[in-house]
This record gives sequence, C-alpha cells and structure tokens, in this order.
Amino acid sequence: MGEGIQIYELQRMDLRGATVIDGFPSVGLVSSIVANYLINALQLRQIGIMDSPYFPTVSLVREGKPMNPVRIYAGSKPTTGPSDQLVVFISEFQPPPNLIKGIASTVLDWAQDQRCTQLVCPEGLIVDREAEAAHEAEVYGIGSTDRANEVLKKNGVAIFEEGVITGVAGVLLNEGRKRDFDVITLLSEAHPDYPDARAAARVIETIDKLLLHTELDARPLYEEAERIEMQLKSIHHQTEGVKKPASPQRPSMYG
Amino acid sequence: MGEGIQIYELQRMDLRGATVIDGFPSVGLVSSIVANYLINALQLRQIGIMDSPYFPTVSLVREGKPMNPVRIYAGSKPTTGPSDQLVVFISEFQPPPNLIKGIASTVLDWAQDQRCTQLVCPEGLIVDREAEAAHEAEVYGIGSTDRANEVLKKNGVAIFEEGVITGVAGVLLNEGRKRDFDVITLLSEAHPDYPDARAAARVIETIDKLLLHTELDARPLYEEAERIEMQLKSIHHQTEGVKKPASPQRPSMYG
Amino acid sequence: MGEGIQIYELQRMDLRGATVIDGFPSVGLVSSIVANYLINALQLRQIGIMDSPYFPTVSLVREGKPMNPVRIYAGSKPTTGPSDQLVVFISEFQPPPNLIKGIASTVLDWAQDQRCTQLVCPEGLIVDREAEAAHEAEVYGIGSTDRANEVLKKNGVAIFEEGVITGVAGVLLNEGRKRDFDVITLLSEAHPDYPDARAAARVIETIDKLLLHTELDARPLYEEAERIEMQLKSIHHQTEGVKKPASPQRPSMYG
Amino acid sequence: MGEGIQIYELQRMDLRGATVIDGFPSVGLVSSIVANYLINALQLRQIGIMDSPYFPTVSLVREGKPMNPVRIYAGSKPTTGPSDQLVVFISEFQPPPNLIKGIASTVLDWAQDQRCTQLVCPEGLIVDREAEAAHEAEVYGIGSTDRANEVLKKNGVAIFEEGVITGVAGVLLNEGRKRDFDVITLLSEAHPDYPDARAAARVIETIDKLLLHTELDARPLYEEAERIEMQLKSIHHQTEGVKKPASPQRPSMYG
Amino acid sequence: MGEGIQIYELQRMDLRGATVIDGFPSVGLVSSIVANYLINALQLRQIGIMDSPYFPTVSLVREGKPMNPVRIYAGSKPTTGPSDQLVVFISEFQPPPNLIKGIASTVLDWAQDQRCTQLVCPEGLIVDREAEAAHEAEVYGIGSTDRANEVLKKNGVAIFEEGVITGVAGVLLNEGRKRDFDVITLLSEAHPDYPDARAAARVIETIDKLLLHTELDARPLYEEAERIEMQLKSIHHQTEGVKKPASPQRPSMYG
Repeated sequence: MGEGIQIYELQRMDLRGATVIDGFPSVGLVSSIVANYLINALQLRQIGIMDSPYFPTVSLVREGKPMNPVRIYAGSKPTTGPSDQLVVFISEFQPPPNLIKGIASTVLDWAQDQRCTQLVCPEGLIVDREAEAAHEAEVYGIGSTDRANEVLKKNGVAIFEEGVITGVAGVLLNEGRKRDFDVITLLSEAHPDYPDARAAARVIETIDKLLLHTELDARPLYEEAERIEMQLKSIHHQTEGVKKPASPQRPSMYG
Repeated sequence: MGEGIQIYELQRMDLRGATVIDGFPSVGLVSSIVANYLINALQLRQIGIMDSPYFPTVSLVREGKPMNPVRIYAGSKPTTGPSDQLVVFISEFQPPPNLIKGIASTVLDWAQDQRCTQLVCPEGLIVDREAEAAHEAEVYGIGSTDRANEVLKKNGVAIFEEGVITGVAGVLLNEGRKRDFDVITLLSEAHPDYPDARAAARVIETIDKLLLHTELDARPLYEEAERIEMQLKSIHHQTEGVKKPASPQRPSMYG
Repeated sequence: MGEGIQIYELQRMDLRGATVIDGFPSVGLVSSIVANYLINALQLRQIGIMDSPYFPTVSLVREGKPMNPVRIYAGSKPTTGPSDQLVVFISEFQPPPNLIKGIASTVLDWAQDQRCTQLVCPEGLIVDREAEAAHEAEVYGIGSTDRANEVLKKNGVAIFEEGVITGVAGVLLNEGRKRDFDVITLLSEAHPDYPDARAAARVIETIDKLLLHTELDARPLYEEAERIEMQLKSIHHQTEGVKKPASPQRPSMYG
Repeated sequence: MGEGIQIYELQRMDLRGATVIDGFPSVGLVSSIVANYLINALQLRQIGIMDSPYFPTVSLVREGKPMNPVRIYAGSKPTTGPSDQLVVFISEFQPPPNLIKGIASTVLDWAQDQRCTQLVCPEGLIVDREAEAAHEAEVYGIGSTDRANEVLKKNGVAIFEEGVITGVAGVLLNEGRKRDFDVITLLSEAHPDYPDARAAARVIETIDKLLLHTELDARPLYEEAERIEMQLKSIHHQTEGVKKPASPQRPSMYG
Repeated sequence: MGEGIQIYELQRMDLRGATVIDGFPSVGLVSSIVANYLINALQLRQIGIMDSPYFPTVSLVREGKPMNPVRIYAGSKPTTGPSDQLVVFISEFQPPPNLIKGIASTVLDWAQDQRCTQLVCPEGLIVDREAEAAHEAEVYGIGSTDRANEVLKKNGVAIFEEGVITGVAGVLLNEGRKRDFDVITLLSEAHPDYPDARAAARVIETIDKLLLHTELDARPLYEEAERIEMQLKSIHHQTEGVKKPASPQRPSMYG
C-alpha cells in the first residue's frame, strides 16, 4: 500500500492475549459510541497514534490536550485472568474507500505483532422496513474463523448467516479469514443517518457478555451512550465550521 | 502493473492439466451464472482468493462464512481421466477498465504456474434485433490458438468469425494467443441489461459437451440457472443499499 | 516513460533496410486506410503486437482469429532489391495525448533496433475552404532530414514548407530529426470528420512512386480504399455497441 | 512524503535554544500579521527559503529584491539571555490540504536539527455569535506538552480546553505531542473573512509576555498591525491580477 | 522533479561566458517576440531541443524543416569580446503551472553547466489604467543579485522595486538568487490579451543597451517586431485548427 499508514506507540505495554476493539466509524456510528464508552468506562489510557499523510490535518483538543484524529487506547478489563487487556482503536474521521484496506491491514498487522488474540468490530446494520416489524431489534455476530463462530454460539449470539458487510469491518473479516485470526463483527440494527446510541448500547451488552463478564446495569449504559451521541454531534459541528476557511482545495496566494 | 493484484492460496491442490473457468462478470452476467452453477453442481471447494488494494472493501457472508469478493474454487470433474480437475474464478464485482489487464494477466500467470492446460471464458453476446429474428439463439466459440479452434470444431461449436470481444475475456484471448496458451471464449446471445439465465444455460450445455461429458438433463439446468439469477439480483440489491452510507468519496470528520 | 508500451514479436524476420509505415489513426483515417490497403495488397503477415496497460481491453476477431488492437505486419515488396521489406504498424484505436510520445519513441526505437532505414507516415491535412478552391487536391511531403527531403524532391513530391503536424506523425518527425533517422510524412488533403478513402488513395499512389514502383492501376485502388472505409466504419459501430455494458468507469458490485 | 518540500539555508546561524514562530496563513491571517510584525520590529534577516515543486511559481519583489513565497528569518530578541534567538517562518501563500502535513513535518524536523527549543503558532479562532457577546475577546493557549501548558499557565494565558485546531498549526500540535517537543498555539478570536489586525495585535502582546519581555507600547502595535493588514491586501490584489494571464491550467500553444 | 524535462544538444558549442535569453511565453508574448527577433537579427543557429513527455505532441514545419516546440539557438553577438556568445530559448507553447519549476531549473542547470554567466528574461507588465496615464511607458529591470542590479543601474534601467513576477521568469529570479547566479528580468508595460510588439521592441532596445551595443535603428526594429507579432498569431491559428481532431482526451476505438 502506498498510503503510508503507520502506528506510533506513545507508551509500550505488554498486550499479549489482549482483545482489540475496532472503533472506526460505521453505520449509525455504532463503533464510535462503543469505543468511546469502553475508553471512559474502563478508564483506558492512550498508548498510540495511527497516522498517514492522507489523514485529516486536524488536532482535537480535549481537557487541554491536543490529540490526533486516530488513536489507540489500552488498559485492563475489570475482571482479571490470563488475557485481561483491552485495546481500543478510535477514529474521529470516516476513512475514504482508498484508505480502508490500508487501515484494516495496519490494525491487523499491529494486533498480530503485539500477539493480541482477537479483534471485535461493532457495526450498524440497516434493515428493510418490512423485516423490521417482524422481530425484535437484535445483535447478530459473524466470525472470521470456526473458532470465532463457536464463541458467538456458546454465548447465545445469533449468527449473521447471509449478507454483506462493508468498510473497515468487512475487510477485517476477510483478512481475519485469510490469516486465520479471530475477527468477530457484532451487527446491531441501526439508523443509517444519525448516531444511534440504542444500537450501540445493545452491542456493549453483547461485548460485556463475551469479554467483560461484569453484568453491567443497563440503564446508565443507555444514558451514557446517549451522552456520547451528543458529544459526537458536537465534534462534527465544530470541525465543519472551522475547517472550511483554513483549507482551500488549491494553492492560492493569501485570501 | 501497479495494481498489486495477487492470488492467495488458502489450500494447495495439484492442478496439473486442469481447465480454468473465468467467472468475471460479462454481458448478461453469463459468466457469473455459469461459474456459480459449476461450483454448486460439482461441489467445488474454495482454494484461494484474488485481492488488490483496488478491489471493493466488502465481505460477503454466505452460510455464516465471510468471503472475499473474488474467489477461486476447484475440484474434480464428475468423469475421471488424466486431467480431471476444474478451477473456477468467480467475482462478485465488475472490474473497472484500469484493472482488467492486470486481472487477466494474473489469472493466466497463475494458470500457467499451476500447469493448467486451458481456460474457458463464458461471455454474453449482444446481437442486433434484425439479426436476432433470422436464426435460433446459439453459442459461438473462438479460440486463442489453432488447437483451441480445432477442439471447438470437433465438438460442433460454431466459430465466431468476425467481431469484437471486450473486457477480461477479450484480454485473455489476446494474451492466450501471445503466450500460445489455449483460451476458449464461448459466446451466447444475451440480454445486456439483466442477468440472462437462459443464455448461461446454453453455455453450460456447451461446457458439458466440451469438458464434462455428463449429458446433463436440460430442465433442472435451466431452473438452477434461474435460481442463481435471482440470487445475483439479491446480492446486487444488498450491496447497493449498504455501501452508500459507509463509503463517502472523500475523507471527512464524522457524519 | 511510465506507460509500459512494449512490442512483442510473434515471429522473427530479418528487417534490415526495411521501410516502416505508421498506421496510427490520423485526420480522415488516412493512415489507417493506407495501412490496411498495403497489408491486403502485399499480403503482409502479422509479426508482432504493441501493447500497454493503457491500451484498450479489447480483442478484435477476424476470420476466426483474435487480434490485439495494435499490430505489426511485414513482408516483401513486390519488386526485389537489397531493401525489399515493408513493415506496417496498424492500430484500431486512437491513442490519447498522454500515450503519443511513448508510442512514437517505441516505434522508432524498434525500427532502429531492426536496422530499418526509413519510416513513412501518411497523414490527413485540413485545408481552409478558401485555399481549397484555388488548387487541385494534392499530396505534400516533409522529411526529418535533408536526405529524406531530397528523396521527396527527386520523386516530384511537393514539399510541405510551413505548417503544423500533430500527433504520432508530428512526434515521429521531431524524433527523426533528433536521431538523424529518415522520417517522411505524406500529407493529403482530407475531410476531418469521416474516413476519407480518396485522400488515402492519393497517398498510396505516392507511396507506390516512392517505394513500390509497381505502377498501380488507379481505379481498383480507389475502389479498394472505399471498401476499407466501409470496414472501418463497421468496426467503429461494433466496438461502440459492445463496449458500453462491459466496461463501467468505476468498480461496482454486479450490475 | 512525496511533495519534495525542502529548506535551503542562505546563511548559517547558530540557533540553539531559539524559539520558532509559524507564520503560515491562518484564520484572519493572524499568523501572517504576527510574523510580519516580528520581522519588522526585531529587524530579523532572511536566512533561508522553503520550497517545493508544488509551491506557487511566483517571485515577490520588495525593495528591489526578489523573494520566494516561503521564507525563514532570524535574529536576536531585544533582551539577551542564553536562548535569545527568534526564527520566523513566513508564507505568502495558503498551503492546500495535501501539503500541510509535509510543511509541518519539515518545519519541525528543521527546528529539531537546529536544536531550537520551542515553536509558537499564532492562530485565529472563530467564535459563535452568541458566545461572542458573553465575554471579552481574548487569547487562549494550548501546548503540545505538559511543560508547554505550564509556561502558558505561569504567564496567565487561559488554556484552550476543548475544540478543534486545523491546518499547519493543528498538525504541529499533534507532531509536537508525538515527538515530545514544545509547540504552543495561541488562539485569538478573529474574523474569518479578512485580515484581522486587532486579533493579531492581541497575540503579539501575548508573545511579548511569553518570550520578549519588552513591555511593548500597545498603541503603535495596533497601528503597525493595521499597516501590515493593508500591505497583505495589496499583495493579494497584485498576485490575483498578474497570475491569470500567465498560468493557464493546461498546456496550450501560444495564446 | 518527475516531469522528465531534458535538453538534447544537436550541435556542441563553447558557450562559456554567454548570455542566455529566456523566450518562454509571457504577458503580451513579450519574451516570444524578443526571442524571435534576436534569432533572426543575429542569425543564430539551432543548437538544441528541450523536451518532456508532457510537452505538446506537435511538429512545427518552417521552411521545409520540422521543429520541436521548444528549441535552443546560439551564435555570436555582433560585437566581439571575451564573452561574445548569445543563447536563446524559444517555446511555441505556454507551459502549464506544473511544468514551470522544472523548466526553470533545467534552463538554469544547463546554463551553469555551460558556464554561461547571466540570464535575461523579457517580461510583460500589466499596469493599472490610472497609473498608465501618469507616466511614459517604460522598461523596468530587476536582478537576482546585487551584481545584476548594479548592471541595470549603470545602464540607466529603472529598478522594479515592488511587485510580483509570475511564471518561468519569477522562478528564474528566485532560483538565481538562491544559486547566486545573475538573472535579470526586464519588464515592459504590455497588453495582456494580444502579442504586444511595441512592448517587445522597448525590451529589445534595452537588451541592445545592456548586451549588444549595436545602436539599433529604432524604426525597422518596431516594424520587425510587428511582423513577428503577425507570425505568432498565425501559428496560434494553425495549431488550434489542426490539434482538435487528432487528440481526443480519452482512448477510443476509431472515430
């Protein structure tokens, strides 16, 4: 790939056996809300940056600290065990099609270098109106390997049998199958046009069941997901407003 | 070529003497229907993937397994003999012009590396309305070498004497001639605007005559071809619906 | 050049001292008609292919044989002598501006490698209406070297004194002058908008005078030129009709 | 990066411990006005050029000397001390998005090679109308490191807690954090549509407080800032007028 | 630079100490008229070609000789002395912005390799209507070095104190300053929209004063400049008419 996508580690951690969460924006921003929730709830620390000459030229300032638009966080799960680390990739920008394969490969290369053992992708799923009426909104799962599908079945997650998964999550599934690395996509029915906190909350409950075993209280979870939904809308508003005057499409003398 | 088109083998097989079927989409999706039919009817197994940074970022899920959009299947023909293997390339996406030469070279390089002995391309043929009335819809053949044209004549396939063949099949014919490798294009009159199951069924009958010698029963063949036609329309519907929200053309902050 | 234009020899011939004819499309398709005429009249055989990843992805089938869109033919002139070979480059496609310099260099490099001694480019010439009335339609010549201009004068071809020659023929003239290689452009007043058989026939008469010395009978020449004009229109019609459904501009899932 | 951005030193100076000011155009041209002011007020000399094949093809003539559009000036601060040098990058053109990361890296690489110790970016800040009424126009600061934020707090500069910084300044902040190099962005509320001399003057006062300790008289500062505002408008006018006839977008013969 | 701009020498000459004239098209074609005039008046001979894959694919035929669109001429000045050679670069095409830096570097690299000692760029200068009434039309000069500015002052040429110079001449000035090589731009007030022979004649008078010392008779100079103006308009007319049918923007089959 020529996109020069690279990961810079700000802090080294032993991440053997860790689970990686993909937080690149998806339908209904399901992955973004999930990633933000986990970073806050588990108090993960930033350990790295993903950058490329083709990523946006923007610094996000939060609590008086400047941040890159794509970041890596890590920390311990609340429950202990042999593989008690969690890693979260979070991106404040929607990668364009030509960067998606490079991003997916870079995430997976790095996860394998760190000897992480699985990767979980929260995704929104658009469902036909007719189908929607027929059943309860639900979370489906699909794994890149038989092992991964077994984990889903054992935890009672319905298998996504037929359909299409696009973007970073789609490529991660294909790559996981090619490399025999466990990638699990969790699909939650979501509204395609705005951040869907309820869809994200359903995925967080499933992640808790699969990975955290903390028996989260559902109520605050939904409230927190809604708070993040608001925050994301606000970032969107700010970047729209500021970006335009500062980045004209062609070189020009002053103006 | 700079498109980085590569073949990844998921499983090694001895394919010496095998025949390769090109299933990249053609007029009326003739090649796609034929490729799907052969994979199902002969119960071929997936042995590889073709991928490139410029291929779509999508995973197709079938029976709970994620799949790349371009795949290679192989298996034994129903009749035994010294060269009893069949290999099928199938693509769920229509390659744009700038990838066509790279795809054709990669298919042919791989087929020669594996010591496969011939390549068959099912193609749809658009015929002028006036001409259409004058004769029965038929399958024509054209080979890259004199040997290949002999095979066609011996099996009673009418030779395509004058005309133009575009896309992957056209390049494979030219390359076959250049490399002195047997490439056979089978052209069946097809409707250009929708998957044409009947045109595909006529090609399958010809392939049976040339390669399989199983004397297929025509009726179920036409029914099966129509079932695949439906399935392809459905995949098309799903990818259209899902792709749009997830892949904007330019980088943008959330939205 | 990064266009990867290459010549593949299908058959080796000793072409020392041969004359090369450039048949890349020009104004009024003068060069294409001339090249086709010479191939037929002198029964030249195809000896090679010119190809590039940027050439069209199309196979032309004639008399049951697939052919690349750019081909090289060669054979003996009807009259014998020390340099009795003729080579013709013929192209079924109009090269876009970014390929023209690469094509011209590749033709000339190859001609010099083969120790051919001169290159002749038939060209159409658009003339102002006012000027047109004033004189008989005529063939002008211009050479890259003093030697080449001498040959023209000795054979009574009027020198093209002032003007502009564009495309492959223009670049070949410049390159010929730079390399001190004899390039002769023959310009015949032609209609810019359709294949002009009469303009081509006038150039063939001049080529006969300069190179072949066969004293061609004029009548069948004009009839033959008109037959080729028809054939070219027909190829144009077929490639237009077939090309569209098979080569969409962007990758897309089925459809 | 492939943009070939390079710094050429016209004159070598020992710049260990120096502070670098980023004068690439920002919202309200705040950085440009500040950079021009400092060059004039401290009588800095040009020590270098930044250039790239993608920078504008223009020479700015001032006082009978031709100048590149991006230049580096340096000189001593009015107060002496161990690190008494100041370096200013000034650009007469607004870099397009694809050059911003390359420019920021090149500035920072060079600053680190010279062993400069910090980099200050003046920036304009667009504020919502409603918010504007609520408080006095003010200068905020944000540092790439805890050290840099400490300097701001010690000097009474309000910390920019939450928001988005785009362009060269945004990338410099991110890079500064990644490299643990002190980058300070000073944000002054500015009008986005024209050069805002008052916003720039507020930043100059802050720079004086942080770096120069000269207790500048405010009146002439504001007058001088306004004079520069006029000059920038005039350059803009000239480059617009002259550029058009001389640089058509495509190659063309005379005209 | 990746534009592959190269100079080919057709004939070697000892050009040590020579003055180079830049004849790439400028405002009012001032440089083109000056370059043509000097080539004719001093009977300079063509010694080389400048070419690039991105230059136009065109051959200009003059007096029965094909020529590249960018050429180098050289010869002796009418007055003798230690540095009595003159070199002229002349271009029949207006370089697009992306080629300008490459052209300027190539000219200067070559001039330095040949040990030429200075470069003179004739340029048109657009002046505001109001300003125009206030003074006599005049020639201004600006040099890349103090040495060059001294030469201008000694010969009574007014210095261009403030303003903007774009295109090849602008880049040559910047490069000359960077390399400490004497580049002199002579600016003559010119009409931006058509070839301005009078503006060019004023520059020729200044060049005569600076370099040739022949005390040219003004009358025939102005007449000759007008003759060249006509010739340039005619070339422009011809290239427009011929170019279109021969160079479509995309590959296409015949037509």
